[in-house]
Amino acid sequence: FISKLPQTGTTIFTTMSALANEVGAINLSQGFPDYECSAELTDLVNAAMKQGHNQYAPMGGVMSLREQLAIKTEKLYGAVYNPETEITITAGGTQALFTAISTVVNPNDEVIIFEPAFDSYAPAIKLMGGVVKSLSLDPPDYRINWEMVKRLITNRTKMIILNSPHNPTSTILHKEDIEQLYSLIKNQDIFILSDEVYEHLIYDGETHHSIAAYPELRDRSFIIASLGKPFHTTGWKVGYCIAPEYMMKEFRKIHQFLVFSVNTPMQYGLAEFLKNEDNYLSLPGFFQQKRDSFRQGLEQTRFKLLPCYGSYFQSVTYNDITDEKDMDFAIRLTKEFGVASIPTSVFYSKGTDHHVLRFCFAKRQETLDKAVDRLMKV
Amino acid sequence: FISKLPQTGTTIFTTMSALANEVGAINLSQGFPDYECSAELTDLVNAAMKQGHNQYAPMGGVMSLREQLAIKTEKLYGAVYNPETEITITAGGTQALFTAISTVVNPNDEVIIFEPAFDSYAPAIKLMGGVVKSLSLDPPDYRINWEMVKRLITNRTKMIILNSPHNPTSTILHKEDIEQLYSLIKNQDIFILSDEVYEHLIYDGETHHSIAAYPELRDRSFIIASLGKPFHTTGWKVGYCIAPEYMMKEFRKIHQFLVFSVNTPMQYGLAEFLKNEDNYLSLPGFFQQKRDSFRQGLEQTRFKLLPCYGSYFQSVTYNDITDEKDMDFAIRLTKEFGVASIPTSVFYSKGTDHHVLRFCFAKRQETLDKAVDRLMKV
Ligand SMILES: CSCCC(=O)C(=O)O
Ligand SMILES: CSCCC(=O)C(=O)O
Repeated sequence: FISKLPQTGTTIFTTMSALANEVGAINLSQGFPDYECSAELTDLVNAAMKQGHNQYAPMGGVMSLREQLAIKTEKLYGAVYNPETEITITAGGTQALFTAISTVVNPNDEVIIFEPAFDSYAPAIKLMGGVVKSLSLDPPDYRINWEMVKRLITNRTKMIILNSPHNPTSTILHKEDIEQLYSLIKNQDIFILSDEVYEHLIYDGETHHSIAAYPELRDRSFIIASLGKPFHTTGWKVGYCIAPEYMMKEFRKIHQFLVFSVNTPMQYGLAEFLKNEDNYLSLPGFFQQKRDSFRQGLEQTRFKLLPCYGSYFQSVTYNDITDEKDMDFAIRLTKEFGVASIPTSVFYSKGTDHHVLRFCFAKRQETLDKAVDRLMKV
Repeated sequence: FISKLPQTGTTIFTTMSALANEVGAINLSQGFPDYECSAELTDLVNAAMKQGHNQYAPMGGVMSLREQLAIKTEKLYGAVYNPETEITITAGGTQALFTAISTVVNPNDEVIIFEPAFDSYAPAIKLMGGVVKSLSLDPPDYRINWEMVKRLITNRTKMIILNSPHNPTSTILHKEDIEQLYSLIKNQDIFILSDEVYEHLIYDGETHHSIAAYPELRDRSFIIASLGKPFHTTGWKVGYCIAPEYMMKEFRKIHQFLVFSVNTPMQYGLAEFLKNEDNYLSLPGFFQQKRDSFRQGLEQTRFKLLPCYGSYFQSVTYNDITDEKDMDFAIRLTKEFGVASIPTSVFYSKGTDHHVLRFCFAKRQETLDKAVDRLMKV
């Protein structure tokens, strides 16, 4: 069997969640909550099923959901997207990312990504015959050096993948980043894929700089977002992509043959739920409380906190504890101390000597407390 | 924008359903029921949501669902698949097809398909750089001439795509077909992709010859099936793929970065529902009643029935009515007579001069009656 992805193993999320389950550890590895989503939301989905919304959704998605997303995007970022032609509902953010990459990348096209990078980007690029050009970012702030990006750009550069708030590092793009990006590519045919699945999880009153807020950039961008991460329903697998019509037209050509359409009753339920803007405007506060509490707890341990500007992840270094590699230490921490995390070196294609673990804090207070108790023993 | 699929337009299913909605026609085009799925099944999904099954499913699927599918596959086809390593739940049959094609097809690999062919096969092959080799089948029986297949096979042939019961033609593969296929490829490295999404919809006491029932073939086959088509939940987008471990391992490498996982509460609900085998054993009878009634009705019209051995589609010719092309006639039939169908010529890459329309009969009796009334006026 000629493997299409010979260097690819099982994603770290599967590996660490499986290990956590096996040894009964508190699972702060894969990013998902351990509390319930809103009962109002599951009631809305149930009502949709009972009303008979159980057959194929339109290929682009249930129209009322697309309309709500258009309203939200305009309200938050001042950007007008046409729900008919510029918004497509996807089977989660991952499918949107895969489809956008498939739409743009031809054999030998180069795509610039920033590492540590979510682990689906590179395999999707390679599957399309593209070439990954990666720039490593460093703790504590993982800022992008745009001079270095400039040096990576060639006449084969087809796309740049951004991710803010960033997984796994919890950094965010600042206005200056967007400006520098724009000045770099304004005269070039380079697309942007902006992974904004954590758009609503941003702290300390910071603004999420969606690419949608920048007209010159959004005209060449696929923006990917999630409905599972904000609404505590990661298992429903509903996300979306927004893009200008000329790009969305090509995206849908692939989308229609990749999944055709997305779960109908969940789309109806989410459309209703989005009508109440509090349901998303309350999210930064909801998660900030968890972030602050978890950080306070970790301050009592020998782990050292890295900044957390957004997302529901908190990264730490552990030089005072051990000089083990992060993968080895993450496994030992799971087995010996009962707390599972994600070793972030797996998100660098060429490896790294940073010793950084990522914890997910989308957890009940008692789970976070219990995890901190265990981490204090390390 | 360099289109990845320059010759691809919008799928015929979207086009015809949109036209049907626009003009208020009875929609017998896209294949989905106009009646409710089982209330027991929606209750099971609701219970799963209320029990908190709203986060990521395991990458391969909810284990109890995989187990039920292993039991069903063994019961119906005598084939033992390991749910741990050989069954993966997908976001519908379409995603399973796309993923299997992505897993196997490398640039310049040839894939043999039989036309009329479901319209997702060719774009997926082309997206992976593969070459489509198609063999046209003819009404009324659309049998495969295996001598012709032999002539299509080269040392670049990587895979053959089968589909039984067949969409759009409602034919089925017979035991002799399977035997001839096997004798053709037994000494060659050729994979099979067997699209069996209509496995439970087969009539007149015929047996569905799943590739799973043929050990020598299943060892080189991806078998794709659906849970939406049998259980009247096409909008839930849950399907699955079964394959030997060495193939499934590579399938999952792509699956994990394409969608990662599939809707969790639907998987729990379907797993419970499958525990009662009557829920699938009753399907041939349920649909045969509709098929028979619809055929009886059509016999009173000027349309001529083609055989229907399986699936929920009935094809007809219409030479006594008009010599219009099927696309033109399908549009006129929708607009002037209020019945939407699918013109089957769109499923031939090089076109065809067959004049065949496909109607979906997964509809309430009153819908079928009303459609027949209208078709009698044609
Ligand atoms: C797609 S599974 C992993 C969830 C996630 O985004 C993360 O943990 O980083
Ligand atoms: C994937 S949408 C079309 C449904 C279907 O399989 C058909 O009508 O043939």
